Amino acid sequence: MTYTPSIDKLNLVPFVSVHHMMELVLEIGVERVLAELTGYIEEDFRRWEDFDKTPRVAAHSREGVIELMPTSDGRHYGFKYVNGHPKNTREGRQTVTAFGVYADVGNGYPLLITEMTILTALRTAATSALAAKYLAPEGSRTMALIGNGAQSEFQAMAFKAALGVDRLRLYDIDGGATKKCLRNLSGLGFELTVCTTPEEAVEGADIITTATADKQYATILTDNMVGSGVHINAVGGDCPGKTELHRDILTRSDIFVEYPPQTRIEGEIQQLAEDHPVEELWQVIAGKVKGRREPRQITLFDSVGFATEDFSALRYVYDRVRETDHFIELDLLADPDEPRDLFGMLLRFPGSSLLAAKKAG
Amino acid sequence: MTYTPSIDKLNLVPFVSVHHMMELVLEIGVERVLAELTGYIEEDFRRWEDFDKTPRVAAHSREGVIELMPTSDGRHYGFKYVNGHPKNTREGRQTVTAFGVYADVGNGYPLLITEMTILTALRTAATSALAAKYLAPEGSRTMALIGNGAQSEFQAMAFKAALGVDRLRLYDIDGGATKKCLRNLSGLGFELTVCTTPEEAVEGADIITTATADKQYATILTDNMVGSGVHINAVGGDCPGKTELHRDILTRSDIFVEYPPQTRIEGEIQQLAEDHPVEELWQVIAGKVKGRREPRQITLFDSVGFATEDFSALRYVYDRVRETDHFIELDLLADPDEPRDLFGMLLRFPGSSLLAAKKAG
Repeated sequence: MTYTPSIDKLNLVPFVSVHHMMELVLEIGVERVLAELTGYIEEDFRRWEDFDKTPRVAAHSREGVIELMPTSDGRHYGFKYVNGHPKNTREGRQTVTAFGVYADVGNGYPLLITEMTILTALRTAATSALAAKYLAPEGSRTMALIGNGAQSEFQAMAFKAALGVDRLRLYDIDGGATKKCLRNLSGLGFELTVCTTPEEAVEGADIITTATADKQYATILTDNMVGSGVHINAVGGDCPGKTELHRDILTRSDIFVEYPPQTRIEGEIQQLAEDHPVEELWQVIAGKVKGRREPRQITLFDSVGFATEDFSALRYVYDRVRETDHFIELDLLADPDEPRDLFGMLLRFPGSSLLAAKKAG
Repeated sequence: MTYTPSIDKLNLVPFVSVHHMMELVLEIGVERVLAELTGYIEEDFRRWEDFDKTPRVAAHSREGVIELMPTSDGRHYGFKYVNGHPKNTREGRQTVTAFGVYADVGNGYPLLITEMTILTALRTAATSALAAKYLAPEGSRTMALIGNGAQSEFQAMAFKAALGVDRLRLYDIDGGATKKCLRNLSGLGFELTVCTTPEEAVEGADIITTATADKQYATILTDNMVGSGVHINAVGGDCPGKTELHRDILTRSDIFVEYPPQTRIEGEIQQLAEDHPVEELWQVIAGKVKGRREPRQITLFDSVGFATEDFSALRYVYDRVRETDHFIELDLLADPDEPRDLFGMLLRFPGSSLLAAKKAG
């Protein structure tokens, strides 16, 4: 089915389920999806000033948080619903699940509803790869992958797609996670090395990716582990109280962030003074600020995830899924024959109890 | 089908389409739905202090607005997506459409996704009827219904269900709207009088409901039209620059509102000084403030709609729909066998191109 919104079907909104998302991603190919998604995110970062940057709206509870992350470029509107509940895994649930909506600003009608758990994993990895395109040393092929949980394989695939990274040095405090990562990535074109310490993992690495799930202030990387000339891609520290890098690494690095007001609260730089200088990734991509200036520089992408990246991901799925049949259409919007006659729609519904009452009355 | 969330189906979220909502409402009966909904809204107003009152998050454009309205009582979380685009009717679209999500605060998982265009029409009318239960003169049977658009029949049915109002005096500047309203309500137990002026409509009315769609400051009711002892239910003025009542009526009335910070911006009282005294409806319902004190008093419910009312409506649909088969289940949440193995879920998907690549590699 090709999606052609019709005046006769104004009530229908395409919905991409988890199943459909997997079909879509696998049909296009994971690496190609990551490469194309990197392109979409890059395009949107380049026109950063078009977006309204609304702070996320969070509902905190003892057990976790539910957030709405809206943004708009003036033509389209997108928001993501995302929860974060660390204790969920004990009940077999995901710590983080998400879904999103993409809408037309001109008429306010939703254009797409989609699962975003898988999509967020893809966009997070694509954003990391995008930052590394501008910040990692020329010819980077070796990446230390510290933290081998749910995000690790996506990072690996995104860096392969965007930069040609094909040598991975895996480390996780939990050997089972490393085993899973190794099993998943073997046969996909990587030279894979399992490391027993983080020190071993960073040996000879051009890029160090940290994607651990520690909830508290942790020190995955200590200062002496980071030599000159590397790019650090810090993905795991993404909320207040959750960091991965020793403070001394931060002060030796040139730090690049998505949106400073958010990163100063949620990112690695929550450890630094509020006025510590950072660069904005969009300015690098737009050519306003230099990324990597010289080979010995340490660059750090302090990734926390921003609403525009979800917008780019929604825009990508909306563009791509319409050429496929990997969606269903939901009867989401009331569409009475006469716009003012919502009640009449109920009245004239086949077998309407209201109509029966009228006839009896 | 009876909805029993199962540990094997953590990925599924019930979805109530427009079609299913109509089936549900007609199966229960419109009047009974309105009466029950009034009860749910009343319960939630009574425990007003349990709710977090987040301001709505609006994305404004030249053509209209898209809003997210979240709230939570600490156990459940709800939000409504709603647009407002006056020019939409020119393209056969609705000015306002809405959908909503109800979720479990404990694990952040959505419990329900539902259309809310019809549901909002129902909850708006139910809220008006609830206010009138506490504010309208004892034994009210006659209501002037000024503005006979999409909301008018719902108001009529809600006031019949909650107060026994059965005499309606209809007026609209557009005779076609009145005709539609008359046609829809005839045979449903009302004595209906079509009036040619608003002055005629208010004659002998115990309750005056204004539900017009004027976008600009309008004066649907002038001061001399409102005698002592009536209750005014002002539904139409609901955004900055949109009011229906002459200012002099406001100063003669005791004014009751949902949430003062919002109503002072959006309601009739935007015409008054910022410190003009108003009462909060929840305090009347909770017994902290007296509603109608004496027969000659003019009471005014300055309705703009608040997030807790949508929460009550979501809670009602969630409770009621599960006993029926008026929903489908959406595969919305990724549920890998092993929570950390999102990538493995892609890898092991039937016919996975990734798995094929591995086997070839």
